[in-house]
Amino acid sequence: MNKKTLFLQGNETCVEAALYAGLGFFAGYPITPSSEIPELLARRLPQEGGKFIQMEDEIASMCAIVGASLTGLKSMTATSGPGFSLKQEAIGYAIMAEVPCVIVNVQRGGPSTGLPTGVSQGDVMQSRWGTHGDHAMVTLTASNHQDLFAMTVEAFNISETYRTPVILLLDEVVGHMREKLVIPEAGEIPLVERLRTSVEGGTDYHPYLPREDGRLPMSDFGGVHRYNVTGLMHDMWGFPSTNPKIAHGLMRQLIDKIEGHVSAVTHLNEFFLDDADNVLISYGSSARSALHVVENRRARGERLGLLELKTLWPFPADAVRERCNHVKSVLVVEMNMGQVILEVKKALDDPDKVFLANRMDGVFITPTDIRNILRLTQGKGV
Amino acid sequence: MNKKTLFLQGNETCVEAALYAGLGFFAGYPITPSSEIPELLARRLPQEGGKFIQMEDEIASMCAIVGASLTGLKSMTATSGPGFSLKQEAIGYAIMAEVPCVIVNVQRGGPSTGLPTGVSQGDVMQSRWGTHGDHAMVTLTASNHQDLFAMTVEAFNISETYRTPVILLLDEVVGHMREKLVIPEAGEIPLVERLRTSVEGGTDYHPYLPREDGRLPMSDFGGVHRYNVTGLMHDMWGFPSTNPKIAHGLMRQLIDKIEGHVSAVTHLNEFFLDDADNVLISYGSSARSALHVVENRRARGERLGLLELKTLWPFPADAVRERCNHVKSVLVVEMNMGQVILEVKKALDDPDKVFLANRMDGVFITPTDIRNILRLTQGKGV
Amino acid sequence: MNKKTLFLQGNETCVEAALYAGLGFFAGYPITPSSEIPELLARRLPQEGGKFIQMEDEIASMCAIVGASLTGLKSMTATSGPGFSLKQEAIGYAIMAEVPCVIVNVQRGGPSTGLPTGVSQGDVMQSRWGTHGDHAMVTLTASNHQDLFAMTVEAFNISETYRTPVILLLDEVVGHMREKLVIPEAGEIPLVERLRTSVEGGTDYHPYLPREDGRLPMSDFGGVHRYNVTGLMHDMWGFPSTNPKIAHGLMRQLIDKIEGHVSAVTHLNEFFLDDADNVLISYGSSARSALHVVENRRARGERLGLLELKTLWPFPADAVRERCNHVKSVLVVEMNMGQVILEVKKALDDPDKVFLANRMDGVFITPTDIRNILRLTQGKGV
Amino acid sequence: MNKKTLFLQGNETCVEAALYAGLGFFAGYPITPSSEIPELLARRLPQEGGKFIQMEDEIASMCAIVGASLTGLKSMTATSGPGFSLKQEAIGYAIMAEVPCVIVNVQRGGPSTGLPTGVSQGDVMQSRWGTHGDHAMVTLTASNHQDLFAMTVEAFNISETYRTPVILLLDEVVGHMREKLVIPEAGEIPLVERLRTSVEGGTDYHPYLPREDGRLPMSDFGGVHRYNVTGLMHDMWGFPSTNPKIAHGLMRQLIDKIEGHVSAVTHLNEFFLDDADNVLISYGSSARSALHVVENRRARGERLGLLELKTLWPFPADAVRERCNHVKSVLVVEMNMGQVILEVKKALDDPDKVFLANRMDGVFITPTDIRNILRLTQGKGV
Repeated sequence: MNKKTLFLQGNETCVEAALYAGLGFFAGYPITPSSEIPELLARRLPQEGGKFIQMEDEIASMCAIVGASLTGLKSMTATSGPGFSLKQEAIGYAIMAEVPCVIVNVQRGGPSTGLPTGVSQGDVMQSRWGTHGDHAMVTLTASNHQDLFAMTVEAFNISETYRTPVILLLDEVVGHMREKLVIPEAGEIPLVERLRTSVEGGTDYHPYLPREDGRLPMSDFGGVHRYNVTGLMHDMWGFPSTNPKIAHGLMRQLIDKIEGHVSAVTHLNEFFLDDADNVLISYGSSARSALHVVENRRARGERLGLLELKTLWPFPADAVRERCNHVKSVLVVEMNMGQVILEVKKALDDPDKVFLANRMDGVFITPTDIRNILRLTQGKGV
Repeated sequence: MNKKTLFLQGNETCVEAALYAGLGFFAGYPITPSSEIPELLARRLPQEGGKFIQMEDEIASMCAIVGASLTGLKSMTATSGPGFSLKQEAIGYAIMAEVPCVIVNVQRGGPSTGLPTGVSQGDVMQSRWGTHGDHAMVTLTASNHQDLFAMTVEAFNISETYRTPVILLLDEVVGHMREKLVIPEAGEIPLVERLRTSVEGGTDYHPYLPREDGRLPMSDFGGVHRYNVTGLMHDMWGFPSTNPKIAHGLMRQLIDKIEGHVSAVTHLNEFFLDDADNVLISYGSSARSALHVVENRRARGERLGLLELKTLWPFPADAVRERCNHVKSVLVVEMNMGQVILEVKKALDDPDKVFLANRMDGVFITPTDIRNILRLTQGKGV
Repeated sequence: MNKKTLFLQGNETCVEAALYAGLGFFAGYPITPSSEIPELLARRLPQEGGKFIQMEDEIASMCAIVGASLTGLKSMTATSGPGFSLKQEAIGYAIMAEVPCVIVNVQRGGPSTGLPTGVSQGDVMQSRWGTHGDHAMVTLTASNHQDLFAMTVEAFNISETYRTPVILLLDEVVGHMREKLVIPEAGEIPLVERLRTSVEGGTDYHPYLPREDGRLPMSDFGGVHRYNVTGLMHDMWGFPSTNPKIAHGLMRQLIDKIEGHVSAVTHLNEFFLDDADNVLISYGSSARSALHVVENRRARGERLGLLELKTLWPFPADAVRERCNHVKSVLVVEMNMGQVILEVKKALDDPDKVFLANRMDGVFITPTDIRNILRLTQGKGV
Repeated sequence: MNKKTLFLQGNETCVEAALYAGLGFFAGYPITPSSEIPELLARRLPQEGGKFIQMEDEIASMCAIVGASLTGLKSMTATSGPGFSLKQEAIGYAIMAEVPCVIVNVQRGGPSTGLPTGVSQGDVMQSRWGTHGDHAMVTLTASNHQDLFAMTVEAFNISETYRTPVILLLDEVVGHMREKLVIPEAGEIPLVERLRTSVEGGTDYHPYLPREDGRLPMSDFGGVHRYNVTGLMHDMWGFPSTNPKIAHGLMRQLIDKIEGHVSAVTHLNEFFLDDADNVLISYGSSARSALHVVENRRARGERLGLLELKTLWPFPADAVRERCNHVKSVLVVEMNMGQVILEVKKALDDPDKVFLANRMDGVFITPTDIRNILRLTQGKGV
């Protein structure tokens, strides 16, 4: 079999990319529309030498990948809305304990069980704010399989670089859509491997003492070093502390290691922005319809452009501002009640020129939907 | 003992107010710093004819109050950070099924288990966006016991009026601080009782068909009417539907019943705003320090005012705008990395004049902390 | 029968008002949706001592009222789209010859025969620019029967004051809607009567020599004075001239007598404009739906206002600017592809804040239509 | 006689170009200053195998060319002001029934019969808005014979491409001015021929069902297909319909086929615009005087440019904006009370920098007229 060019579902592409990135452990509990990910990994991961476990529930799945990651394996789980909510408490643990891991959320419609097979992008804000307490978060997404492959690998790379959970926020259309994928050669996409401590066995290893470059070397848990891991505020040895200076320092570390590297983790696609008078901003599958509209209007001479976001959090406010602050209007295209638009408005001097083209009924937003709303927001009526 | 005037902890005040509002059922799992609430209710609630259950975990507690509420009882649970995260999935169910209930979150410090006995206001954004999918949310808070009593009753009133879960977002200082409380006379604060259907037994009851005024009459579950309750998108009978029009209509109902009544659910305290040149905005215990600063500066002739928010969500943007758009500067005082400030900036034409006075180390923010930051944001240097 | 309070169709109200204003002559050719006007006048006008003629076609009808007006009678015709187009050449004659008359156009849908019984407001621009050559025009409209009565009388008053044809631009919904009308007492609305020359018989009467106040006294044609009336450029005796100075003077007279009196002929209704942040602008029947939206939103605390135009031409740009230049957004509500919005955009400094809520399918625009578009133009999505 | 280079009146040039374009039918009623067109065609058209009919009036002429076009012949009529007004109703029919045809309006002065031999450009707005109901319109013009030839051919090309009436809006000076014309070789200007359906006889031909590229193939009326043509709103078979979706779809088709192809039908001449600080905008014969001024000033080093519009409708707002938004001032040169200036003001961010140089007395505007006004609008006084 020639593995170079495949015709896959998005969920399958995500699996191929995770394997490419060096996935060593997956734990999950099947939930539509993400079920193809565990289904395929149950077969593929052992073939590649990794471990696959189907867990008893969503919470256990999240806890399992945190534990596995600490032992030294790149780890991932996959879920959808209700499972993502259930995982929030353990995600907070991964944030606090600084455990690299990747959580795939293939979004479905609505709150609660909602529309299991309907498309939605309603978990954008939750992917930033879903767990309690102050923290920062990285969330990536993609609209096509080639980008999805790259962003999945990037999710692992960022999680290892910054010792943080990373959310890969897909949607039902991207997850189930079949499209051509060319698998990159080994080495074509650089991989960030686990940074292990150079401290030999003994007591000199400080699991939460950053190196000069800010990174925290790890030691495979259960290995040569004994150290503490906790969800409580802790010092450089991992022991709990209520000392305000230590608490403040830890909070700044958790937040700044991400908010201080926005440009390093920002991934965008730009279409026709150079001379655009009006700009669409979109992400995930809705960006496909947005791109269709832009290409169609360009053919007619309209100066319309598209800014596609592949990094949702930390929100690339400076990049959005640089590309859109001067244009006449911005139309954010997303399948929810308006979530990314909240950040776009904050990024621009004139929030009143930012409009929303959306659906939130479980149906994919089409170019026609966008065109109709674009007419209205340009004051052209129905 | 004359019960009219008491000297209580905030958590105890919350209990007294819940009983005043007609609490009929409480389920919970103790967690610092909210544990006094179940502790006291375990004794007080049966005395008043209500039911108290200590559940096996946080999720079960949330599910229990949803079920109890459906049978006709005003229901409540109490928790803190990690428990609040665990409850998010079931909160989404209460949103979707439109079940009135009150969730008290007495915030502690940090993500994960963090600082169990340290103060924080880090769950503001989570209380809006913690569960998956598009939805709206009501979140109330208070800085003193008299307001805490009133806001607790209001939480029940709003939950019954709009058939929605309501978050009562307290913090460790408010929860544990002792202060005088004058219990209102019966009837002094109007109570909103459960709106029950006037449809006699039979099949004519439509659990999700709004009346002309938008309200949804309920029927005690297990009583004369048989009907369906689900977390899936559903029609007016409560049966699951993937019809896009029905899904869209339900989403708008869930969102508009709250976002369309912002002014009706907005509660504020205003101090010296009429002629203020500079305004502090705060809430919860940090508003106590903010008020101290304002009173102190007024005595010196400075035109400083305080806007204290008791409604955090839906965010009272119009009210904030009306009071602060024209002033020279706004200083948001909160104990987190800056959460309410995100909304204040969106509400005002010039976000650059909004500053943050905060702590996030588990220590209470003092008037001195605020004064030092106020000097700096007024360009007066250290 | 007590004639004071009636329950009438709009077309019937127009008839009552024309009789109140002193209508002496009507010529017309029935065309839906204006046919009730000739039908009722055929009976009522002779009862009041006036003359009614059903003509052989639309052009003849227009020519007849020009001739009748010259003999001293207040004259009117009524038509709809295709008839209005056919009348344009003779309307130009009335402009050039400065003949007072009133043309009622009860608009129907679409170009050509279009939708004879569907509603539309598609003739707004045509009522200004439908005839060839430079000129000015007065066009009035109304959304309710009491205003329709007043505007019909005002149409006669303006036509007599400025010796100009006046268009009364109604729409199918206003024309056919039944509503209460209280007939004003005689004298309650002042009437402008024909200004007749004080020159006795002989040759000293100059039909096109303005008085000091700019008005042109008339002499009943066929009476004591012989004078010339022509569609050609002419001098003060009415004789043709190609002298550039005379041509220029006549053009300025035709234009300035109207464009120089914009405020005198401007009629508006204002609803909740004092503190409005966002303003709807509408006219005719669509203003009824707009008002419904505004009252509904005001009840919910939104600062929405309505500016209803009863004078469409000369466009009251200064009045619109005064009321709307400072607001956040303006939504023009009309049943066409966007016609009045073109003028509103010209009147304001920031045309990008002007949006269109419209229908153009022959169906009445409802409050729900407007609300849905208002959401989108406020950036709130669907 | 070598026909390649001729010395002709503009009206004669128009005739030569119509024949070049493949004119097959002309119907008209002579009216100054367009009479040379029917006069010459009465002789020339039969020579070329076409049909010429002098009709009994203006309306009949317009109706005749609509009917002839439906049978498969490229058709044209010519008129001036009063005739153009009379034709408006039948022009609306051609719009609604989507019948290709060309209407030449050689403008004269004033409203009504006005100044039959005086020059004017007073019908610009009427050529857009003269018929009732929402619609779009194409109007072309030219200032010299070579352009007039090209624009006449383009009028036929556009009318066939988009199945729409096209107005060729000339003025008395262009119509009567003699100038050199080099007739292009056959094929030098590409011709758009009638797009006929490929459907064989039978009932499968849908006269109003657009092809994938948006164009509507025609079938010669009276030929192998029976189908309905109406001025009423109609479905894809041409049968009347009041279905709102069909009505809306038809309206959008009539409007978008033109408004959606603005750049494709925009024709401009640009003179010295690259570095211009101040720009004149003009069209038709007045552009000749404007060009004289510009060339004269350039010789003196002034950065003055000229944008000559050959497409008046759909108004090339983007093109005007691109060339003029950044300049210091714009002076619109036209012979009317200010018509094109209304559109120029709408196209630019700062309408206050747009000025008018005009005459409206039947006399040709000269370079001296323009220069005097230019001084004043540049603040240089008289």
